[in-house]
Amino acid sequence: MSDTEHLSMGSIKPVFPDDGILRLYSMRFCPYAHRVHLVLDAKKIPHHKIYINLRDKPDWFANVSATTKVPALELVTEAPTGAGSPPILIESLFICDYLDEKYPEISLHPKDPLKKAEDRILVDRFGQFINAIYKLLLHDDPAQVGDASLYEGLDIYEKELKRRDTPFFGGSKPGMLDYMIWPWCERFAALKYTLGEDVKLDPVRFKILLQWEELMLKDPAVKNFFLDGEVHAKYMKSRREGNADYNMLYNAAKRPKLE
Amino acid sequence: MSDTEHLSMGSIKPVFPDDGILRLYSMRFCPYAHRVHLVLDAKKIPHHKIYINLRDKPDWFANVSATTKVPALELVTEAPTGAGSPPILIESLFICDYLDEKYPEISLHPKDPLKKAEDRILVDRFGQFINAIYKLLLHDDPAQVGDASLYEGLDIYEKELKRRDTPFFGGSKPGMLDYMIWPWCERFAALKYTLGEDVKLDPVRFKILLQWEELMLKDPAVKNFFLDGEVHAKYMKSRREGNADYNMLYNAAKRPKLE
Repeated sequence: MSDTEHLSMGSIKPVFPDDGILRLYSMRFCPYAHRVHLVLDAKKIPHHKIYINLRDKPDWFANVSATTKVPALELVTEAPTGAGSPPILIESLFICDYLDEKYPEISLHPKDPLKKAEDRILVDRFGQFINAIYKLLLHDDPAQVGDASLYEGLDIYEKELKRRDTPFFGGSKPGMLDYMIWPWCERFAALKYTLGEDVKLDPVRFKILLQWEELMLKDPAVKNFFLDGEVHAKYMKSRREGNADYNMLYNAAKRPKLE
Repeated sequence: MSDTEHLSMGSIKPVFPDDGILRLYSMRFCPYAHRVHLVLDAKKIPHHKIYINLRDKPDWFANVSATTKVPALELVTEAPTGAGSPPILIESLFICDYLDEKYPEISLHPKDPLKKAEDRILVDRFGQFINAIYKLLLHDDPAQVGDASLYEGLDIYEKELKRRDTPFFGGSKPGMLDYMIWPWCERFAALKYTLGEDVKLDPVRFKILLQWEELMLKDPAVKNFFLDGEVHAKYMKSRREGNADYNMLYNAAKRPKLE
């Protein structure tokens, strides 16, 4: 669980060798950045990681990416499209689609245009679940636990995976749809630490999705960036308290283990 | 300017021959549906058009598309992905990307994954202009004319087209980015009919974009679905008044020309 520090205002921009390797600007607990980490890992694409403190962004970051959003992927092997700085891509879905087109050896999108479009629609519709789980993660309000949209948002995926009758949405292994929805599924396990043990998926209603979750947890890309619910809960608590602890893992790794 | 009627609750679902031709569910004045019309026309893909009254949707439409949103593209040539009804695609960008992959003869996206991703980011960032122009079109509030975000949203595109130094964003002819942003550019001309002649693009600040607009107006796909600012203004007025006149063109075409 060791990790690098999140860089803040006043930090020095990391200098990388001229190695032609992609540079991902990220934040360790950002679910959108998580998507890009999963795709890079699943496709075995080498990359440098630079973590950004989002509440106190480094001044140099605006020169790398005008929008100063994460995730942002800096390309260094391409011919520059403009004068000067290397091209930078933003928005998790655009970055992941780019990676899937540029590095086709391990392909994540379905080859069939219709199946690909259907999966993209399903990623988009996952927004309903994302909104519902964010309410719970950000506000820690038990009154919202009963919010039907949380589970209604998942019903679509339970039904769809049953219809596909494959272990993953992508078939016999995780595909783009699996990875694009995973970050919020992983964070679902945080809810029980703040809202109580009863916040869990109904084993009958979500039988197929729970099997899928078990299989996803064994996937090397998922394992590589996995954090358990307790860690996510701890980060979300710090964020709710207005003091997002970006360097939680970094500091924990540094601290001598006395206990 | 003749057009078919927008179908409402109580209408009979149109019956099409078993001709394998795509069916587009649309609304004549919807800028998102406009995107799909442009792509279908630019790529010369035959299709049936079915216009939907969005305030009083036909009861049969939910059986065609569960979300009852337009645009929706019904595929009839594909093997069904589920039991029963033919596959349906929603969301303008997903539909347009699907069409570009499925019908590659006339290609709209750049071939290069980086250029494609950059264009998709630019389509996404156009949301700033979309939000700003919607405020003006929907609320008819002259106080918002001074809203800087309207023009700031366009600055990015002026600069980008200058950088590309080609007549269109797509190069020597319009590409996906050109068509994806066009519907709101066309509607900009509506503003002067309700907010006054001074709502126009500064010819110095937007010199390149104004040249682009002139060229776009000559494009066959743009011309094929074009409505002038006065017509858009008339529709938006009916919408602001709570009585969106979907069949404005249909009724105008039916009416005997006595005057």
